[in-house]
Amino acid sequence: MTSLPNAGRPVQFGPRLSVEAVEEGGFLAPRFNADGLIPVVTTDASSGEVLMMGMMNAEALLRTIETGEAHYWSRSRQCLWHKGATSGLIQKVVQIRVDDDQDAIWLRVQVEGSASCHVGYRSCFYRSIPVGPFGDAPIPLSFEEAAKIFDPVAVYRDAPNPTQL
Amino acid sequence: MTSLPNAGRPVQFGPRLSVEAVEEGGFLAPRFNADGLIPVVTTDASSGEVLMMGMMNAEALLRTIETGEAHYWSRSRQCLWHKGATSGLIQKVVQIRVDDDQDAIWLRVQVEGSASCHVGYRSCFYRSIPVGPFGDAPIPLSFEEAAKIFDPVAVYRDAPNPTQL
Repeated sequence: MTSLPNAGRPVQFGPRLSVEAVEEGGFLAPRFNADGLIPVVTTDASSGEVLMMGMMNAEALLRTIETGEAHYWSRSRQCLWHKGATSGLIQKVVQIRVDDDQDAIWLRVQVEGSASCHVGYRSCFYRSIPVGPFGDAPIPLSFEEAAKIFDPVAVYRDAPNPTQL
Repeated sequence: MTSLPNAGRPVQFGPRLSVEAVEEGGFLAPRFNADGLIPVVTTDASSGEVLMMGMMNAEALLRTIETGEAHYWSRSRQCLWHKGATSGLIQKVVQIRVDDDQDAIWLRVQVEGSASCHVGYRSCFYRSIPVGPFGDAPIPLSFEEAAKIFDPVAVYRDAPNPTQL
């Protein structure tokens, strides 16, 4: 008995039978990695700013499509993560895009409360790296947001910080 | 003998000794995954459009910082990838950002030739997924770009297609 390439996949996802079907086809046939996850970049639909990068499993992707609110897979907590359920910073989906080989998702969202980052900033990408040769010196970062939008201690209370060292 | 947490890292990258230093600090201390890679989202610096998602290893990140041209790690070819070396679609770095826990990179670029996708489109994310319940039906995709910007066969000739099924 051979196992089918599509075994265990939600029926809403098409099979990945050819490069042409995946790249030029009109049906969603996502590719998840060995952990069953697909990377997601989330941008502010108005400003175009990148707010965060996260991961989805099949269930998170389907719930996002069905509900129009961003769901991710939390790797630090190992559970489905309805973004904003704790903080109130719900991400309303304006558009969902998939890339050529269907192994990455782009979410364009509107955020209630205009912040997305657990540290308190608007975007998780609140620091920049300068371009240039640094030799063997440590590479400095510059802050691109003047101030935090909310106080993470007040919002998350004693929830564990998701950052892993 | 204990192995140091920073062993084998380029000297330009700071150590990841505390959550506060990683999230609020002024030095680059990136976190690479078990394969030594960090995910990268690349946007058009003018339009804000997401062009592609890729991966970098430490060398690709350092070369991008030092040269101001995007370098990635090609997982399909397993080699350092100077984007545009084959196609001419060089990505000039306008800004590099890093996220809160320093495990993701955002590149804002200008593309010579205005296309980024090996299929021939401007963005790799040339298709959208509609929001809504689909029951058990296959989920359709809509094309968001009217036409290809270049002919991939003419540009890449017989180079292998990087899409994996």
